[in-house]
Amino acid sequence: MLADPQAALAAATEGDEASVVAGIRASASSGGNNDQKKMYVDMSTVDAETSAKIGAAVTEAGGLFLEAPVSGSKGPAQQGQLVIMAAGDKRVFEAANDPYFSIMGKRAFHLSDEVGSAAKMKLIVNGVMGSMMAAFCEGNALAQATGLRQTDLSEILSLGAMACPMFALKAASVQMGEYPPAFPLKHQQKDLRLALALGDSVGQPTPVAAAANELYKAARAQGRADDDFAAVYEAVVVSNAEGAGKDAKRVRA
Amino acid sequence: MLADPQAALAAATEGDEASVVAGIRASASSGGNNDQKKMYVDMSTVDAETSAKIGAAVTEAGGLFLEAPVSGSKGPAQQGQLVIMAAGDKRVFEAANDPYFSIMGKRAFHLSDEVGSAAKMKLIVNGVMGSMMAAFCEGNALAQATGLRQTDLSEILSLGAMACPMFALKAASVQMGEYPPAFPLKHQQKDLRLALALGDSVGQPTPVAAAANELYKAARAQGRADDDFAAVYEAVVVSNAEGAGKDAKRVRA
Amino acid sequence: MLADPQAALAAATEGDEASVVAGIRASASSGGNNDQKKMYVDMSTVDAETSAKIGAAVTEAGGLFLEAPVSGSKGPAQQGQLVIMAAGDKRVFEAANDPYFSIMGKRAFHLSDEVGSAAKMKLIVNGVMGSMMAAFCEGNALAQATGLRQTDLSEILSLGAMACPMFALKAASVQMGEYPPAFPLKHQQKDLRLALALGDSVGQPTPVAAAANELYKAARAQGRADDDFAAVYEAVVVSNAEGAGKDAKRVRA
Amino acid sequence: MLADPQAALAAATEGDEASVVAGIRASASSGGNNDQKKMYVDMSTVDAETSAKIGAAVTEAGGLFLEAPVSGSKGPAQQGQLVIMAAGDKRVFEAANDPYFSIMGKRAFHLSDEVGSAAKMKLIVNGVMGSMMAAFCEGNALAQATGLRQTDLSEILSLGAMACPMFALKAASVQMGEYPPAFPLKHQQKDLRLALALGDSVGQPTPVAAAANELYKAARAQGRADDDFAAVYEAVVVSNAEGAGKDAKRVRA
Repeated sequence: MLADPQAALAAATEGDEASVVAGIRASASSGGNNDQKKMYVDMSTVDAETSAKIGAAVTEAGGLFLEAPVSGSKGPAQQGQLVIMAAGDKRVFEAANDPYFSIMGKRAFHLSDEVGSAAKMKLIVNGVMGSMMAAFCEGNALAQATGLRQTDLSEILSLGAMACPMFALKAASVQMGEYPPAFPLKHQQKDLRLALALGDSVGQPTPVAAAANELYKAARAQGRADDDFAAVYEAVVVSNAEGAGKDAKRVRA
Repeated sequence: MLADPQAALAAATEGDEASVVAGIRASASSGGNNDQKKMYVDMSTVDAETSAKIGAAVTEAGGLFLEAPVSGSKGPAQQGQLVIMAAGDKRVFEAANDPYFSIMGKRAFHLSDEVGSAAKMKLIVNGVMGSMMAAFCEGNALAQATGLRQTDLSEILSLGAMACPMFALKAASVQMGEYPPAFPLKHQQKDLRLALALGDSVGQPTPVAAAANELYKAARAQGRADDDFAAVYEAVVVSNAEGAGKDAKRVRA
Repeated sequence: MLADPQAALAAATEGDEASVVAGIRASASSGGNNDQKKMYVDMSTVDAETSAKIGAAVTEAGGLFLEAPVSGSKGPAQQGQLVIMAAGDKRVFEAANDPYFSIMGKRAFHLSDEVGSAAKMKLIVNGVMGSMMAAFCEGNALAQATGLRQTDLSEILSLGAMACPMFALKAASVQMGEYPPAFPLKHQQKDLRLALALGDSVGQPTPVAAAANELYKAARAQGRADDDFAAVYEAVVVSNAEGAGKDAKRVRA
Repeated sequence: MLADPQAALAAATEGDEASVVAGIRASASSGGNNDQKKMYVDMSTVDAETSAKIGAAVTEAGGLFLEAPVSGSKGPAQQGQLVIMAAGDKRVFEAANDPYFSIMGKRAFHLSDEVGSAAKMKLIVNGVMGSMMAAFCEGNALAQATGLRQTDLSEILSLGAMACPMFALKAASVQMGEYPPAFPLKHQQKDLRLALALGDSVGQPTPVAAAANELYKAARAQGRADDDFAAVYEAVVVSNAEGAGKDAKRVRA
């Protein structure tokens, strides 16, 4: 599950002998019918274009391709609770689903035959996540700035329609200002950037995600790139650093 | 639980004989020690300033005041599952909590002695809600615009860190374009406006909420004021109405 | 030209003897036909509602009312180069225009008979101004962050379609980080807030102004409220303060 | 002055015999000292990376390279009033400046020796332009929505600190809803996208430009890609189309 599009592309296609594609080509040229075609499942998170390139290289070399990025970070991965979003050759999906995907994840989706569709879905999911976390941090910043307890806010949210594992998991990070990275902020910002680019490519505006993205950029510039993405909180409140003494009590709950 | 600050203020304070304050004054002037003071619990959702005005009028008339707005719409109200956010006189809170709040809600918070604090918390909670719903709608719009199934998106979200009752409840509305009002869009937009004003008053920027607010304004202008607030989806996609035929297939999953 | 709505309203209407309205009432009750009616021109910058209240009080007291806020700060005022935006009684406009407005301003507009229209126009003009200044500051921040000279950017802008007195006047402020107040930032932010509220009242979204407003809020929180509004630049770059040493050379040209 | 990065790159580098680089290589390999080196001036508007690629190819082939994108559309081009932003080899700049740049433009800047700097400056300038036009359109939309004359707004702006050729040129387009393309909207949106990407690369947030970009995306989706970029006005007001009859008179002045 390589995090970088260039790395994923290189692993799959570069090198005369060592790459995935070279292996598939060697196998294919030694004969073999469709049932014996080599299958390649790429679980990296890459953009749709890169995924399509890898898919095309695999197919052209005589293999079958499935992209299958996952949703969920460290914890879910260790517990076999990932959500797997797949697109590409249905035969590969079926072969991979049982047993592999069933072990790794709580559910696997075959979204489309079109390679790139899973990459898009993953970006959309992560785009929503980036906006939601930014919204959560704005709420926490408002609580703090208006003299309310952030812990009360978190508890209230946990009892209502917005209760979600992410808020429950990240509330302490935000409240204590400590951000051990489960999903590094720079990756969240990259995914927002790519989700915005996806919207751009089809003419779909997403102004909330665009505003969130600017906050993550600011957090990156503050040196938070390798912190958990909840550190976007620091960009939400940072602008008030100088004013803290004057205008409002900013001690956290 | 009056929805309008003016109405709440009028009910509490206007009229020589009929108002809450007139009743308290009559009672107080007939003598009575602290233990017998009339208590007034205002469960309306109003801004902090209006709440403080009502509180001051009640206190000045010799009563004890608690503001106690709730979080949760029709369903939770009918099931006694509201979350109650209270601020003001602690004695009123204790008297109201057992048995009244316990019956109406799953949990009641006494946030502060300062009247207005509950109004602020409610706005913060609803501000987060407005941003989250807009983020969810942007995700759905991106799914549709890129040829993915919105139902797949909803299911994926329901299995991960962002799974929350609100998304589960509203997904069908968004996907079918039908918005029976549980929480009318105009109220969501009003709460975003007031949450932004709250941030303004303490110098706390909330750019994501600001971007979301503009979408709700657009939805209002499209005639969606009385629809459920999930109808902000129509403002997210509306700009593409004319382009639909040309650039992208926008038929929903 | 009072800057504060409350102050303007008080000066016009409060006090039994000292207020403008009291004076008009005294005069009107001593008889007099229409031609002799007292005229009141209010050149404060207030919101449309306050202006309408003052207008109604003046009219009800038997006077004629014109609101006439101005565009332009210290320099234009001293040089008689203000732009005067008036609304209300046309007779007052004509009486005031020659000679008073002609001396004070380079041009006076009678926008409408409806009091409040000039207040609205002033907010719209200042809303555009707030967005433009923020856009200019973003350009300067990008120039600095990418190693370009801000002075080159200013000169290029001064030679093209965007050349305007404001950029020419404020470029040095931004480049040197010194903001002697011609138009205090807190007033610019207040006008953006009111322009957004105006859009809200008619269902007209203005997402660019909303994003700009959040930057001015941030600048206020940094202690820039009384600096010139060009100090919004500091909010645009402030988030990078910590990152400066690591990621990019931020020494200005 | 090719508008497309791919086209510019192809023209410069592709083809064994026909490309610019092939010509330079042929010339260089036939001998010649530095004074006789072939010079290549690329006046296309491309991103910094593409420009750097072309520059590297030219240099590697033994030539000298200058990138020199221009600011200004049809009118200024015909009148020799372009602003030329150059970066790269200073000798090429000097050779090109007199007489060529002097004829084409009113001023040429040598911004840096580093190829890519002019591409960046051009994006920054056009980013500011995109935000300014969006701000202008928001002002016009507010004027219309609140019953004011857009022509009054334009005149007021033309007399004050924000007076600029662009507003003067585009006011009629916005007011009449006719957008003959001087600078196509799709190019303005592309430049905003690239300006945002530039900020992303150095961690400089530009939330106002990001909000503006979403409006241009919306305008593109409405089928306005080939109209003049002033057509972003239609995205600012479009959301109100359905509401027009109900909430506000939207007939233009």
